[in-house]
Amino acid sequence: MPSNREIAKNIGVFDSGIGGLTVVKELAKLLPKETIIYFGDTARVPYGNKSAATVTKYSFQNTRFLVEKDIKLMVVACNTATALSLGLLQESFPDLPIIGVIEPGVKAALKSSKNAKIGVIGTAATISSQAYNRALRQSERGVEVSVQACPLFVPLVEEGWVNKKVTKLIAEEYLAGMKRIGIDSLILGCTHYPLLKKIIGQVMGKKVKLIDSAQTVAQAVKNLLQEEKLAKTTGKGECIFFVSDVPEKFISVGQQLLGEKIQQATQIDIEKF
Amino acid sequence: MPSNREIAKNIGVFDSGIGGLTVVKELAKLLPKETIIYFGDTARVPYGNKSAATVTKYSFQNTRFLVEKDIKLMVVACNTATALSLGLLQESFPDLPIIGVIEPGVKAALKSSKNAKIGVIGTAATISSQAYNRALRQSERGVEVSVQACPLFVPLVEEGWVNKKVTKLIAEEYLAGMKRIGIDSLILGCTHYPLLKKIIGQVMGKKVKLIDSAQTVAQAVKNLLQEEKLAKTTGKGECIFFVSDVPEKFISVGQQLLGEKIQQATQIDIEKF
Repeated sequence: MPSNREIAKNIGVFDSGIGGLTVVKELAKLLPKETIIYFGDTARVPYGNKSAATVTKYSFQNTRFLVEKDIKLMVVACNTATALSLGLLQESFPDLPIIGVIEPGVKAALKSSKNAKIGVIGTAATISSQAYNRALRQSERGVEVSVQACPLFVPLVEEGWVNKKVTKLIAEEYLAGMKRIGIDSLILGCTHYPLLKKIIGQVMGKKVKLIDSAQTVAQAVKNLLQEEKLAKTTGKGECIFFVSDVPEKFISVGQQLLGEKIQQATQIDIEKF
Repeated sequence: MPSNREIAKNIGVFDSGIGGLTVVKELAKLLPKETIIYFGDTARVPYGNKSAATVTKYSFQNTRFLVEKDIKLMVVACNTATALSLGLLQESFPDLPIIGVIEPGVKAALKSSKNAKIGVIGTAATISSQAYNRALRQSERGVEVSVQACPLFVPLVEEGWVNKKVTKLIAEEYLAGMKRIGIDSLILGCTHYPLLKKIIGQVMGKKVKLIDSAQTVAQAVKNLLQEEKLAKTTGKGECIFFVSDVPEKFISVGQQLLGEKIQQATQIDIEKF
């Protein structure tokens, strides 16, 4: 085990914006003694409509920033960044365990599905990367995978329209194909989508299990820390927040996703990393 | 007249992404002999949900890039960037005439309105900057100004949902207040919105004039070039495109806004400027 990890203390988490706070919420619940360093790239959000090259460049800048913050493990809490750059990050930072949001969601869906018909919804970039299809098809069971990009879901969440009639109409349009195919498990492949769980559940019906990867990611982090004996056993945990745009909106909107008050967030110049 | 403008040949235009191509289209129509250098910040789009400080930083980087391209005049073809940074750009580049998209739209609305009730729609950043309200209230006539942020319009246009039922429902929700007030002129304060003209027109009714600033901006540019004797009188014009993300999507989607084929766009690293 490399020396920098032996003395490193923190868990790093990055996302394109505020969505990754749903992962932080679950991490804090499951690992209350850990210090979590969160970076939200609010000056360049969203990632879901950008190219693989640009998202990868941003992911490396975000990682270099977090590496300076004494981290022992990093979570890529953004589906687009995981789909487009997780492999490259793992190759380039071999001493740092890096966990993405796709694999835990895929494992949970494979476990949940009885009829082997699994759906995945995400941003345009996540879906066109085919990262979920590839991961689901590596399973020994033959699974039928149905995917759908839902580019309007993130702006609808950010507008706060999570219970509106138009949001349900848009969800009906996006999800019609999956309903016809008869999937029994649907991966919410974007950290914003858990906030639309109610409407997505109404559209898909009670028999379809919605897979929210935030919980499964937090469990994967806990398992890894325990296996590698990196878990903190004493002390009181905390969350420290960094953003690339001014922090006011992050603080006010982020509280809804985190489920508790954000006291402070510090703005940094991510383009320098 | 400063010497760099005497020999400078081109018109610079920047926007957060593809929306500014509606301005390029009108410029090319009105000034067919000019060479237009366009920069679309596709790696950091959108600007409308970001802070004044971040949008201003991006606007300065974009301007420094264009200044190296031998320009005699620059158009800020993005309402958010105009609202948040036009004054600072003009102060910092005193030798370069810089035209934004707000003033020409305001002048056209004041000319169009008979009942002195004018509406403005735009991104969250444009509306909260109050730049339109300030400009409209400088008029000698007392005008009643009604403003509304429409954050879902840009993603709806980028999704291509310009004729959908849900888009009309969303427009009805956003525009209900303005209809009640009885405005007779509505400024489309975002370069994406002209693509929703049909639906916005249906919702507002035939008596409300929709002000599309692309045409009025192009006229303002033509007037200024002629006044300052900077207009080209010979040769064949062309448009040269630069973007910050990979060019493929810009080329395919941009053609709809420009109304003609985009042969090529070159990717640059805007963070270096």
